[in-house]
Amino acid sequence: MAELTGKSIIGSQPGDGGHPTLFGINPATGESLQPGYVVVSEVELNRAAGLAARAFETLGKTSGAARAVFLRKIADNIEAIGDDLAKCAPQETGLPEGRIRMETGRTCGQLRLFASVVEEGSWVDARIDHADPEREPVPKPDVRSMERPLGPVAVFCASNFPLAFSVAGGDTASAFAAGCPVVVKAHHSHPGTAELIGQAISAAVHDCALPEGTFSLVYGPGRETGSALVRHPAIKAAGFTGSRAGGQALMKLATDRPEPIPFYAEMSSINPVFILPGVMAECPDQLAAGLHGSMTLGVGQFCTNPGLTILDGTADIEPFVAKLGELVEGSPGATMLNSGISDAYDSGADLLRQNSAVDTIALGQTAGGQCQAGAALFRTSAKAFLNDESLGAELFGPSTLVVTDDGTDKMLTLARSLEGQLTATVHGTEADLRANRELLDVLERKVGRVVVNGFPTGVEVCHAMVHGGPFPATSDGRSTSVGTNAIHRFTRLVCYQGFPDALLPTELQEANPLAIRRLVDGKSN
Amino acid sequence: MAELTGKSIIGSQPGDGGHPTLFGINPATGESLQPGYVVVSEVELNRAAGLAARAFETLGKTSGAARAVFLRKIADNIEAIGDDLAKCAPQETGLPEGRIRMETGRTCGQLRLFASVVEEGSWVDARIDHADPEREPVPKPDVRSMERPLGPVAVFCASNFPLAFSVAGGDTASAFAAGCPVVVKAHHSHPGTAELIGQAISAAVHDCALPEGTFSLVYGPGRETGSALVRHPAIKAAGFTGSRAGGQALMKLATDRPEPIPFYAEMSSINPVFILPGVMAECPDQLAAGLHGSMTLGVGQFCTNPGLTILDGTADIEPFVAKLGELVEGSPGATMLNSGISDAYDSGADLLRQNSAVDTIALGQTAGGQCQAGAALFRTSAKAFLNDESLGAELFGPSTLVVTDDGTDKMLTLARSLEGQLTATVHGTEADLRANRELLDVLERKVGRVVVNGFPTGVEVCHAMVHGGPFPATSDGRSTSVGTNAIHRFTRLVCYQGFPDALLPTELQEANPLAIRRLVDGKSN
Repeated sequence: MAELTGKSIIGSQPGDGGHPTLFGINPATGESLQPGYVVVSEVELNRAAGLAARAFETLGKTSGAARAVFLRKIADNIEAIGDDLAKCAPQETGLPEGRIRMETGRTCGQLRLFASVVEEGSWVDARIDHADPEREPVPKPDVRSMERPLGPVAVFCASNFPLAFSVAGGDTASAFAAGCPVVVKAHHSHPGTAELIGQAISAAVHDCALPEGTFSLVYGPGRETGSALVRHPAIKAAGFTGSRAGGQALMKLATDRPEPIPFYAEMSSINPVFILPGVMAECPDQLAAGLHGSMTLGVGQFCTNPGLTILDGTADIEPFVAKLGELVEGSPGATMLNSGISDAYDSGADLLRQNSAVDTIALGQTAGGQCQAGAALFRTSAKAFLNDESLGAELFGPSTLVVTDDGTDKMLTLARSLEGQLTATVHGTEADLRANRELLDVLERKVGRVVVNGFPTGVEVCHAMVHGGPFPATSDGRSTSVGTNAIHRFTRLVCYQGFPDALLPTELQEANPLAIRRLVDGKSN
Repeated sequence: MAELTGKSIIGSQPGDGGHPTLFGINPATGESLQPGYVVVSEVELNRAAGLAARAFETLGKTSGAARAVFLRKIADNIEAIGDDLAKCAPQETGLPEGRIRMETGRTCGQLRLFASVVEEGSWVDARIDHADPEREPVPKPDVRSMERPLGPVAVFCASNFPLAFSVAGGDTASAFAAGCPVVVKAHHSHPGTAELIGQAISAAVHDCALPEGTFSLVYGPGRETGSALVRHPAIKAAGFTGSRAGGQALMKLATDRPEPIPFYAEMSSINPVFILPGVMAECPDQLAAGLHGSMTLGVGQFCTNPGLTILDGTADIEPFVAKLGELVEGSPGATMLNSGISDAYDSGADLLRQNSAVDTIALGQTAGGQCQAGAALFRTSAKAFLNDESLGAELFGPSTLVVTDDGTDKMLTLARSLEGQLTATVHGTEADLRANRELLDVLERKVGRVVVNGFPTGVEVCHAMVHGGPFPATSDGRSTSVGTNAIHRFTRLVCYQGFPDALLPTELQEANPLAIRRLVDGKSN
């Protein structure tokens, strides 16, 4: 295995030594993993943020081509870790090696996708309005604008994606792509994985001769280290994926700063799946198999897990429920990411079991060992769901609550009652969908992504993806944390008026040396 | 004059009668203007917000072409008010009729510019990633996304732009363009002007057969009515232009809501103007004349007023200061917008006069009457400016503080010391600018718009304009309140996965029936 030091990475230097107090824990065995990690000191954290501010003065001015080289180098360096990563991450997370290898591929693919976007360059939304010195009553000035990077970004690693939403995950990739330095706070669930990836990024910073402070990685408890990072004056934006309570606490810190900053938190979502009567009659077994696959994928530990399944009771829903119950009962037990998540799943499932308005339809198998989760299928009525807010709370794990409704209007009422979500899914035949246009309209106003005849898990990394949604799914429903649109979370518009051509950013120079798409005098060319 | 009712406009109905307690006041005479306005009741405000939420279900689905017709109809209706507006607004604001006619033109031009943008349609950033059912290890879904409207928007009228930043101003135009209903809170300084414009919009809603609630106009004190509006659950975003204290109080309400919403406040900016030594030697008189024109334009009551002028003391700056002083002394007095603004200008100017580190170089003339402001020119040293935070506070009115510095490095230090600004301006010869590239870089990180060899006032309404900037210039430095990019403040990304073509928004249908620019499989076409 590559050398793990148990220390933060502060610019180009390892953090100071000291007494390690943070240990990765193998969730299946409860065993503490080596090395232990030293909590970053206040001095080190200030140094990381200060170096980032300094680095921004250079990184913010690099060309898209240079940043593309950097992003690709990070991907190459991560791939070069190879088996060490495939060994370390499963130990820390309980996730199987195959999943880790797939997530590594996704992470590297994501870095390379952002590389292609910034290399091409049109993402900056360059706009040019030419001067008109003859205009009456006052001359028209030459005005040009484009997206520019915000400044140093704090990135919080997510427990459930040790790679794709962690040290070199989507937030880091989009921040680097935009030209922002990044200070990452490692997640206590996978400190070794974080360090392996952190070393890969550090090496890429060095390989590409980028300034020290382009990247730092700090270890420490969320309440202290995370808070200090969000409050640091050098930090100009932050990205977080985690619990609603954690996200809201950090949101508050971000807005209460003397200088408030954008804070992008992805928090909670129950991702309702609506099944319309026509398709229910046609293929109940196929629907049950698809839903079962989606709800148990990754032990249900995805933000897009379908935690709520709403059935139109005018159809015969029993074959579907019976099939789903059968599949749930046959589901093998699996290890959750850590004891906190496992305990929360157990107690949330207990609450549902004890709720007199909820039937427990099926429980999956559980294996021996710690942090084991079994799949679960619960059922309630539309009336009960509408009367009990607790039934709409996220239960993070391999379960779904089936709500049976007695017709289309009740389905609309249920849809209208929902909080903001990352996704909503509708299954229907063409006739079903035509008859439920209003349901689609209501859902569109509630979520970031509407899925038809698919399942919400499996968030495609592409140009059109939106992984976001109205509060409380995220803190800022205007943007996405997956896909190339995520780059706009770490930018702001800057306008250049009356500039000599040579002093303009290359993207705005008259001759269009980068040959990017621009809006010139209102026309796209 | 058109019939003024003294009532709010709640959807298609006038507000209830009652005791009028809000009166426009002619700032020059102190005379109360008729009619008085009735404060909106809680019931009426709830009704306006509720109607807006309901209207959104229809308005949000209208075509860009339909919204273009609506925006142009509003402009036509405003122009049809004609002389009544040119009579009412000057009485309420002290602004001369010529300015009002010009601002009316700007307001209508702005509405028509947004009409052209939504009619053309490419602004939605439509993206299509086609499916690949053969992809391994999992099939790739069909994913499409575009910008969609956020929901009902609260707009606060600004005191200093009774038309261009008020009832039918930039926020309203961009919200309507995006497809969002608007509830406007009138400013107490120009209630009659607000009603005239409100009637024009109401008529346009009716003329275009748009749903009731597309537009409402409410009267009341900021602390109660404004707060209630920002806190209302049906409101999904708000736009504000005003003081830093007012903006920050509303920002806090917006973020402390159970469902936080985007709040766009434009607050305070001192718009530094840097004059480099080469150009200072070449044309001191011309620079003084330009600066004088910019600082006294509209009695200095522009957000982009150049309140800080930083001179490189290695040049001979005295001819410039003398000329500027002469022009300031010759400036006629003029009426400010209202007694609150006038009193704040007087006491702010008094503080500078009493500051022992500040010299009062010149004071302009003042006329008889109330709310009269005289221009003022103050001077201090770089050292004093860096040591006294109060010298960097906005003084809203026709004044500037000249700071003399002893060379380029001090200029950089001054630039680095500044808070976020709407604009920064640099005057220099080509050689000056080449030698001060770092100054331009520092300023770019501080502001929304950098102006070279021009003046910050006169914000061009165009595609490339950015009227925004880092906190405290605005609450959200990512966006602009002027120019067509402002439409993105009232939208969010929505993604459609696996949709049958006929159920997709027109912008995303495979055949591209609107012939808009789209990003298809990563390629712009």
